[in-house]
Amino acid sequence: LVVAQPLAPRKRPGGRSTRVRRAVFDATLELLADGGLASLSIEAIADRAGVNKTTIYRNWPTKTALLLAASEDRSERQIVVKQTGHVERDIIAFLDSIAANITSPLGRALVIATMEPAGRGATAKEAFWTHRFKAAEGLIRSALTPGASKEDVDAFTERLIGPVYLRVFVTGKGVDGRYIQRLVRTALATAR
Amino acid sequence: LVVAQPLAPRKRPGGRSTRVRRAVFDATLELLADGGLASLSIEAIADRAGVNKTTIYRNWPTKTALLLAASEDRSERQIVVKQTGHVERDIIAFLDSIAANITSPLGRALVIATMEPAGRGATAKEAFWTHRFKAAEGLIRSALTPGASKEDVDAFTERLIGPVYLRVFVTGKGVDGRYIQRLVRTALATAR
Repeated sequence: LVVAQPLAPRKRPGGRSTRVRRAVFDATLELLADGGLASLSIEAIADRAGVNKTTIYRNWPTKTALLLAASEDRSERQIVVKQTGHVERDIIAFLDSIAANITSPLGRALVIATMEPAGRGATAKEAFWTHRFKAAEGLIRSALTPGASKEDVDAFTERLIGPVYLRVFVTGKGVDGRYIQRLVRTALATAR
Repeated sequence: LVVAQPLAPRKRPGGRSTRVRRAVFDATLELLADGGLASLSIEAIADRAGVNKTTIYRNWPTKTALLLAASEDRSERQIVVKQTGHVERDIIAFLDSIAANITSPLGRALVIATMEPAGRGATAKEAFWTHRFKAAEGLIRSALTPGASKEDVDAFTERLIGPVYLRVFVTGKGVDGRYIQRLVRTALATAR
């Protein structure tokens, strides 16, 4: 099994490691959806995925690391980062997909489950967010002055997604299409 | 005891209801700090505060409502909403105090503890945030065009505090004085 870096998957479709990853991630998300974080154990995940516990521990040393890897895998499929040439529309589609993800019961549970990292979990969390910001970097750059620093790119990304996460997880106000449009237009007005 | 609306305290310093509120809030925060949300029960709070359980249930019908009331009381004392005539400096002081609050162990625990409201908790959460935004409204208005709508005021507040909450609770990046200065300057550049 060659999945040494959980957050940097070497995809070999159909290979054994791909099948193991798929089975483990699916089991993790299903168990989280069913019983929440409290009932989520590596033992139960291994059991449902049909793999050895040691296989899981070898690849994802902490529960937080495993949750983040499963979350990363899910985000790669669900978060829309397309560049069609229409920046405003593309960024709205990006934020819409983020809102849909974190307001779904499973997406919400995943964010909350990884909110208190300790020990090695913090490193996995940092890697997760580095990857997520990197995935959106090209899209965000298309809204900014050419040659913007990485710090500017990240700060702009945070100004877009910060209010969405705030509403969904903290104030509980939720977001709709109109809110996201306003947020994106205000941000874009100041982007260049 | 006349504390019918937990989030809209009628303060009568030295009165019995004030003493009960103080004792209950202190007990709630101490127990949360000691043992986390899992070990926080109305029974334990009543015990430590030296009041009857029914007194607590009558005033704060759910644990979330009580946590939010204690959090509101704490925020009123810790969040800096001063208008000195220097808008940028005032808003930086406001955000600095928010960052200090939510990065402290107790502040962090309070936000996370109220993150999953269910049933009546959602109403208390809405009331809590309505009050918090209202407390900052004058300060935020001082940065905006005169006559800005309440929606604009709230959206501006969210663009300020959203990235701070995102970093502290979601991406785990944390915030420092420099980050907050940049955030405030960017927001102010587009405020009018």
